Amino acid sequence: MDATNHQVRLAARPTGEPAPSDWAFTEEPVPTAADGQLLVRITHLSLDPAMRAWLDDRPSYIPPVGLNEVMRALGAGEVVESKHPSFAAGDHVTGVFGVQEYAISDGRGVQIVDPSAVPVTTYLSALGMTGMTAYFGLFDVGALKEGETVLVSGAAGAVGSMVGQLAKIKGCTVIGIAGGPEKCATLTEELGFDAAVDYRAGSLSRALREKAPDGVDVFFDNVGGEVLDAGLGRLARGARVVICGAISQYNSGQPYGPKNYLSLLVNRARMEGFVVFDYASRYAEAGAEIAGWLRAGQLRSKEHVVTGSVADFPATLLKLFYGENLGKLVLQIA
Amino acid sequence: MDATNHQVRLAARPTGEPAPSDWAFTEEPVPTAADGQLLVRITHLSLDPAMRAWLDDRPSYIPPVGLNEVMRALGAGEVVESKHPSFAAGDHVTGVFGVQEYAISDGRGVQIVDPSAVPVTTYLSALGMTGMTAYFGLFDVGALKEGETVLVSGAAGAVGSMVGQLAKIKGCTVIGIAGGPEKCATLTEELGFDAAVDYRAGSLSRALREKAPDGVDVFFDNVGGEVLDAGLGRLARGARVVICGAISQYNSGQPYGPKNYLSLLVNRARMEGFVVFDYASRYAEAGAEIAGWLRAGQLRSKEHVVTGSVADFPATLLKLFYGENLGKLVLQIA
Repeated sequence: MDATNHQVRLAARPTGEPAPSDWAFTEEPVPTAADGQLLVRITHLSLDPAMRAWLDDRPSYIPPVGLNEVMRALGAGEVVESKHPSFAAGDHVTGVFGVQEYAISDGRGVQIVDPSAVPVTTYLSALGMTGMTAYFGLFDVGALKEGETVLVSGAAGAVGSMVGQLAKIKGCTVIGIAGGPEKCATLTEELGFDAAVDYRAGSLSRALREKAPDGVDVFFDNVGGEVLDAGLGRLARGARVVICGAISQYNSGQPYGPKNYLSLLVNRARMEGFVVFDYASRYAEAGAEIAGWLRAGQLRSKEHVVTGSVADFPATLLKLFYGENLGKLVLQIA
Repeated sequence: MDATNHQVRLAARPTGEPAPSDWAFTEEPVPTAADGQLLVRITHLSLDPAMRAWLDDRPSYIPPVGLNEVMRALGAGEVVESKHPSFAAGDHVTGVFGVQEYAISDGRGVQIVDPSAVPVTTYLSALGMTGMTAYFGLFDVGALKEGETVLVSGAAGAVGSMVGQLAKIKGCTVIGIAGGPEKCATLTEELGFDAAVDYRAGSLSRALREKAPDGVDVFFDNVGGEVLDAGLGRLARGARVVICGAISQYNSGQPYGPKNYLSLLVNRARMEGFVVFDYASRYAEAGAEIAGWLRAGQLRSKEHVVTGSVADFPATLLKLFYGENLGKLVLQIA
C-alpha cells in the first residue's frame, strides 16, 4: 500500500470562480483506524455545484469548509481496515470522505453499497444525493401531479437529467433547458424528454412560449439568473417553482434577482427552496423506488466520469460551471 | 338630481407614474336603469395600488382597463333607482362602480351594506377587499401559526395595517416596515405592533436584524424591491413569504428582482403569490370574523379619507405611490 495520503485543502476563500491559488495540495501518512473507526481508500469523488457554496464563509444550510481543511466531498471507496462493528475490510461504501485518497470515518453517514448490482458511480448519482435531490425536489417540494407540464433547467446536469426522467415516469410533458445541441439531443433522443431548448441559441423566452404554450406547472430550477426569469415568465396558474440551486450565480459577484417574480402573484404560484438532507429519514424509500426504475430500464443514471488523481479535483470542479459535464460529474481516482 | 354623470376615463397607457394626460374627464347624462338593473349614486371610491397594474396592457389576473373606458374602481354608494329584485332605492351598496358619479349595475358583485353598523368606508376597508386580502393572504397563503414572528411591509397601508393587527390577534410578534416616524409611531402606539422600522432611516437590513434576531416566520410583502430583499435576508427556517403586491415596482421601468431569493433555499422557505378573488366563496366567513374583531375593539379599520370630486381621482391615486396615506385611501365624493 502507498503509505502517502494525497489531499486537496481549501487554502483561500475564492472570489468568483475558484482559482488554482485557492487550493493547497498536501500529503500525510495514511492514518490507521482507532477503535470504532474505519479506513477507506477513496475510488470516486462526487463533484457537485453545491461545493461552491461550501467555500463561502456565510450562513448557509451547512457550515463552510474551514480554511486549511480537506475539501468536503461525497465519495465512494473500499474499506481497507475496520475497527467498527458495522463495517469490514473489502466493503464498498459511500460517504462524505473529502478530497483525498484515504479517509478515516466513524461510520456516520457511511453506506455499504453493492457494486455488482449497479456501477459504484450510480451510488453517487441516481442512488445517491443526486437522485434523492431530484426525487424529493420534484415529488415533495414540486408536488408533481401526473400529466402536468414540467420545465427543468440544467437539464443535462446530474439532478436535471434525473428530474426530467422522473417526470416522464409520472406521465408528464417534460421540457429541458440545456446548453448546446449535443446536450439537447441527449435529452430528447436518449432520456425521453419531450422537448429541449438550447439557452445559448436565441431567445429563451420565445422558445419556451413555443414549447409550453399553456405554461408550466412545475419549474425545477438548477440555474438561476436569466434562465429562472424566463421560466417564471411561462408559469401556469398554480405553478410550483422548485429552487434546487443556481449554478449561474455561485461564482457571480453580481447576484441576479428574478425580475419576473411577480408572475408568482398573477399566477397564484409559489417558489420554494429545499435542502435534501431534510429528507434523510426517507432516503431508503426513495432509493428503493429509484432502484426499481433503474432495473426496469425506465431510468438511466447519466454519469460523466473523469479519471485522474485528487490533484485534478480543482480543474474538474470547474467543468460544472462551464457546463462541460453531461450527467453526474465524477472523478475516478486512478 | 344633477342630470350629469362626471367620469374619469383612461386616455392613454402610462409609462411609469400615471400623468395627468393619461386621464380624460367626460360627462354624460345620468343613465336610467333598465329591467334587471340598478342605478347607484357613488359616494366613495376605493383607491388601491393594484389599480396601477390594471392600466398596463399585459397578461394579468384581470383584463386591463380599456382605453377610453371609465377607470375601474371599487366604490360605495346609494341605490337611487332599482329595477332589480334584490335591490331597492335607498339601499347602501358596494361594488365595482368605476370612477364616476353614477353607475348602472346588473347587481353582480354588488353587496348591500349597513352604514349604521360601521362607517360606509369600513366596507371598502376592513370589511371589503382590503380586509379579505389581509385575511386570506396571512392565514391561508401565509399559513400563520400562533406565536410566530411576522414581518409586514407597507405596514401603514390599507392591507399592511390589517395584516399586523390580525397577526397580533393570533398572538404573534409583529414587526412593521413603513416610511417615516409618524407612520411608525401609529403602528406601535395605536395598532399594537411590537416594533416598527422606518425604511427611510438607515440600513433596513440592520434594523431587521435587531428587531427579529431569530428571523421571521411569515413575511407579508406589499412593497417589493429592496424592501423585499431585506426581508428575504431575515427568513427563519421554513418561512413563508406572501407576495401580495409590489408598490415600489408598479411605476418602475426597471423591475428589481429580489437578489436574496436563494434565502428560500438555505431556509427551506417558500414565496407565494395570490389573488384575493380566488377566495370569493369564503368572503362571508372572513367578513363575519373580522366584524367580530371590530366590534370587540381588537381591530381598527384605518381609513384615510380625502374629500373631493371624481376629477380628484388621478391626483389622489398618486398619494399611494408617494406613501402619503395612512390606512385605506378613500375618495369621498362631495
